[in-house]
Amino acid sequence: MTQHKFLLDESRLPKAWYNINADMPVPPAPVLHPGTKEPVTPDFLAVLFPMALIMQQVSPERWIEIPEPVRDVYRLWRPTPLHRAVRLERALDTPAHVYYKYEGVSPVGSHKPNTAVAQAFYNKQEGVKALTTETGAGQWGSALAMACNIFGIDLEVFMVKVSYEQKPYRRIIMENYGATVYASPTVRTQYGRRVRAEDPESNGSLGIAISEAVETAATSGGRKKYSLGSVLGFVLMHQSVIGLEALEQLVLAGEYPDIVIGCAGGGSNFGGFAYPFLHKNLTEGKKTTIVAVEPASCPSLTKGKYTFDYGDTAAMAPIVKMHTLGHTFMPPGIHAGGLRYHGASPLVSQLVAAGQIEARAYPQKPCFEAAVTFARTEALVPAPEASHAIRAAVDEALRAKEEGKQRTILFGLSGHGQLDMAAYDAYLSGHLEDFEYPEEKIRESLKRLPKVAF
Amino acid sequence: MTQHKFLLDESRLPKAWYNINADMPVPPAPVLHPGTKEPVTPDFLAVLFPMALIMQQVSPERWIEIPEPVRDVYRLWRPTPLHRAVRLERALDTPAHVYYKYEGVSPVGSHKPNTAVAQAFYNKQEGVKALTTETGAGQWGSALAMACNIFGIDLEVFMVKVSYEQKPYRRIIMENYGATVYASPTVRTQYGRRVRAEDPESNGSLGIAISEAVETAATSGGRKKYSLGSVLGFVLMHQSVIGLEALEQLVLAGEYPDIVIGCAGGGSNFGGFAYPFLHKNLTEGKKTTIVAVEPASCPSLTKGKYTFDYGDTAAMAPIVKMHTLGHTFMPPGIHAGGLRYHGASPLVSQLVAAGQIEARAYPQKPCFEAAVTFARTEALVPAPEASHAIRAAVDEALRAKEEGKQRTILFGLSGHGQLDMAAYDAYLSGHLEDFEYPEEKIRESLKRLPKVAF
Repeated sequence: MTQHKFLLDESRLPKAWYNINADMPVPPAPVLHPGTKEPVTPDFLAVLFPMALIMQQVSPERWIEIPEPVRDVYRLWRPTPLHRAVRLERALDTPAHVYYKYEGVSPVGSHKPNTAVAQAFYNKQEGVKALTTETGAGQWGSALAMACNIFGIDLEVFMVKVSYEQKPYRRIIMENYGATVYASPTVRTQYGRRVRAEDPESNGSLGIAISEAVETAATSGGRKKYSLGSVLGFVLMHQSVIGLEALEQLVLAGEYPDIVIGCAGGGSNFGGFAYPFLHKNLTEGKKTTIVAVEPASCPSLTKGKYTFDYGDTAAMAPIVKMHTLGHTFMPPGIHAGGLRYHGASPLVSQLVAAGQIEARAYPQKPCFEAAVTFARTEALVPAPEASHAIRAAVDEALRAKEEGKQRTILFGLSGHGQLDMAAYDAYLSGHLEDFEYPEEKIRESLKRLPKVAF
Repeated sequence: MTQHKFLLDESRLPKAWYNINADMPVPPAPVLHPGTKEPVTPDFLAVLFPMALIMQQVSPERWIEIPEPVRDVYRLWRPTPLHRAVRLERALDTPAHVYYKYEGVSPVGSHKPNTAVAQAFYNKQEGVKALTTETGAGQWGSALAMACNIFGIDLEVFMVKVSYEQKPYRRIIMENYGATVYASPTVRTQYGRRVRAEDPESNGSLGIAISEAVETAATSGGRKKYSLGSVLGFVLMHQSVIGLEALEQLVLAGEYPDIVIGCAGGGSNFGGFAYPFLHKNLTEGKKTTIVAVEPASCPSLTKGKYTFDYGDTAAMAPIVKMHTLGHTFMPPGIHAGGLRYHGASPLVSQLVAAGQIEARAYPQKPCFEAAVTFARTEALVPAPEASHAIRAAVDEALRAKEEGKQRTILFGLSGHGQLDMAAYDAYLSGHLEDFEYPEEKIRESLKRLPKVAF
């Protein structure tokens, strides 16, 4: 009988996060001030983030201790299980061994709490009483609401208006944890008022919501700080518990992966899951192929330019070097809302540029096809974001079959899709659209990159 | 550091179900034919159920082996975790130790797959190609859809119309697993057509949906069988994996419960969770208090009559001896849809009548209050059904505090509430209603009990 699940006792919860800064082949590009376009000082970032997180962002230490109060919250659901997908293997009739690391057992059903809890803790420790953030479909917002509730911090969430109206469940989850949720654009910020003046019917976007949350913190006279759920180095680092646990669990399984696959939007799920394996490549001579999968309709890593760009639509956030489609690029409304960011994490971008990570893009239909195959074999309904990793894993398993090779494939199942059933409905009823590769829009958007001296 | 979770490796998944038939203080009352009102023969039940399940229903064996293919599916998510609610204890400032067994990690988020998988397996083994069933809000339907998909059996689900229209997510989950879902009452059955003729605007009810599913199987000329998600003895027995695992996990925790609390509608979650502890009371002299909690608006165990009644609204299902509010009793539309059954499991009823189990009833508002307290301490959002068990556990923990006594409290968290957020919205916004105890309606309904000679 092949084993299905590899569990770790909570005594084996990682004690330190893995910080890839220590192993980067070349030093990271500077982060630039959106106004002066000069490298930012910690002072600038300190308006938005507590000092502990800023120090983590630039730390060259390979291992950063996880504070005990953070581990104590992680213990509510971590370590998460590693599954061998025996039924999927059987259905594909593949000689490959397929494993997935499942983050959907967290209280909000995704990997997002791994950094939310850490960020809430460090803010609390530095006396911060209130945080602001943005959220699209609500996965990040609900994770931060949970974390802020635990540490006794007030939270204001700017939720993209179209999701606020169409997806009330995650809004209520946030409110249930005590957060205040606004439909963005709001009249509460200067930027929000500007957007509404230009387009009273604006549906909002993640970029607009980021700008509103940042403005609210930046203009609070130090009373509020801001929290971001992806992109930044410290966020990816907090997520490294995923990959570190998976490494230990694969020891229990007696295997080591030939290929590690994660979906990538801002990059936090991908980085947190894949970097501990990349670490082995970089320092122990392992040769695991590391694959980041993104949607073909928002293809920053595969079709974007590796250059300096603003982190947000309003050009108020810092300028970073990353794969970008241009900060004004507005992706089509695909169902994997968590992957609709115009850029990518600088740390992921740099490693893609250096050839350490392979990037692939898939349209949403073949991803949902793979997600349904997965649900009908492994029983779990995957989040639309995670369906991208599943598609790539299925393709690798089929390739192994074609080539008659046993291969060990590991992918990240970043969350469940029980709150995303409308997307499955669209797929099952034949109403799911795939979008043309938005070449023209990307070209237009890339014309508006900031001009910088770096 | 107090431990949060007690996990079992899948090698420690129970190998046998516990069958309380073996330990019942007095023999069970007979099951009567709805037409003749005489004890039914296996032949009658064989129209609806495969022989293996009928034999389990009447088996006096204490332990019934779980077939390996069923255990192999259980392994997808079982054993489920046992948590110590340390943050809840702290918030209540109680000397009590509070534990909960969490079934929400199953692919559909509830305990229902434990019997769905077993029923699908036995049907498959006897060559059944298609099943019918009913579902209210969709928890049972989605569990059976998952199980039928795994064993390659077609499934037709009669879903209460008001839920079909208002709660599309679980419908889509069922369709995603390949099931066909109808809004009940339908025009597909004689009974459905009769209901629609009398009330073209009928919203449906669980009783009506049961009648439609039973009729469809009974008139299929043997091609389809019927599957029921609660009430029957074999269903409760399949659920005993919950309590058996909890027993083992409490050994790891070094504790034994003074009180075990489960929510009870049809009784399958309650029986499966509590009976292994009752077994210790009955055979090893343990003195654990066993509490079944039901909604005050549908109080079969606390206010119903212990007598013979039909299992369904249409008087087509067998007549059983149970606590009942009368088969025509229509409970108000509370949010704990899974607890809105006019009767209770005969095996639970008999033990309540014998004083082995204590029954309590709570209105829904204090239950939601306890559920929000739980979500804000333990981070998990409970299903409305499970909130009844939480309310009782919180009350017991507060009583322990008042009395200054350490007490070990164990309750069953039968599922998560991520698909029930509308109920939380109603509670948080002050729109949740509590209903008067429906004394008059119960009295009226009890006048229509069948007249039987037993």
